[in-house]
Amino acid sequence: MKYQKRDFPVSEIRRFLEPGPVVLVSSAYKREKNIMTMGWHMVMEFMPSLVGCLISSGNHSYELIISSRECVINVPTVDIATKVVGIGNCSGAQVDKFKKFKLTAARADGVKAPLIAECYANLECKLVDDSLCDKYNFFIFEVVKAHAPAAPKYPKTIHYRGDGIFMVAGRSLNLRRLFRPGML
Amino acid sequence: MKYQKRDFPVSEIRRFLEPGPVVLVSSAYKREKNIMTMGWHMVMEFMPSLVGCLISSGNHSYELIISSRECVINVPTVDIATKVVGIGNCSGAQVDKFKKFKLTAARADGVKAPLIAECYANLECKLVDDSLCDKYNFFIFEVVKAHAPAAPKYPKTIHYRGDGIFMVAGRSLNLRRLFRPGML
Repeated sequence: MKYQKRDFPVSEIRRFLEPGPVVLVSSAYKREKNIMTMGWHMVMEFMPSLVGCLISSGNHSYELIISSRECVINVPTVDIATKVVGIGNCSGAQVDKFKKFKLTAARADGVKAPLIAECYANLECKLVDDSLCDKYNFFIFEVVKAHAPAAPKYPKTIHYRGDGIFMVAGRSLNLRRLFRPGML
Repeated sequence: MKYQKRDFPVSEIRRFLEPGPVVLVSSAYKREKNIMTMGWHMVMEFMPSLVGCLISSGNHSYELIISSRECVINVPTVDIATKVVGIGNCSGAQVDKFKKFKLTAARADGVKAPLIAECYANLECKLVDDSLCDKYNFFIFEVVKAHAPAAPKYPKTIHYRGDGIFMVAGRSLNLRRLFRPGML
């Protein structure tokens, strides 16, 4: 499935990341591009739109991202769950993952890393703080541009529990009535 | 509901946090204790068991946690969702949240902050890195002790999408067959 996307406000990307889905991180440097599967990430600020994440130096993508200081965080849905796992279980040092998993590398606006067209949302990111990269492989990115479809509003994301088991996003629960106005 | 818990390996707590649930952070300093609702957190390492999270300096809990250098991360389930929202919409400066929300403060083993008995899992944490506290209100904790029930294995957690809307943890999807042995 390829979603019909439009620009999405970068200050509101918590809608997609805060529930905690597994994401695909795409990167490019010189003539090479790659994709990795990532489960350890968090929103850190609305504006500037900051995301913290763990990219192990053991990953082939680490060097591409450190060198280019950019990436795209792509939010996949359950329809491509087997590709997400496949991407996490091979290395870009050996294979072209876009080709192997039949994924479309689309042009981004603000970064050279490609968007993955088959993902629900695409967040173009620039590395803004690498102070904890050496010690923890922890990166802080600013989301400079976001793409998401108008519908469905809430994607069927997948969330990793370890041991090969994922949780698929379930029903929505509206508790707006319990929030103070300033907290929404 | 009060879960019957046992010790849980701290190196495996990704099972509860990596899917991205909203959590309750309990803290204590001198004679005061408090609870806050937190959505921005991530696993950072298996062993030592590290968790990064965002605790805004605007929260009453911030001072308790900075001063005591400890907290407990409690994982609530959908049965107490209205309490989770209530806790996030009032301040410990005005109310005793344990009393107001009828939650039980149980004694922890390795920290002075209390466990919340009604939560599915309790992770006792010590602050190990505050280097990004001032700049981002970002804390890195080590989980020194964990408590979780043997069943259910996968709790019905709630995941915040913003705007007062939560996603309730859905079905499990077993994709173990697609993992290389070393990746499990």
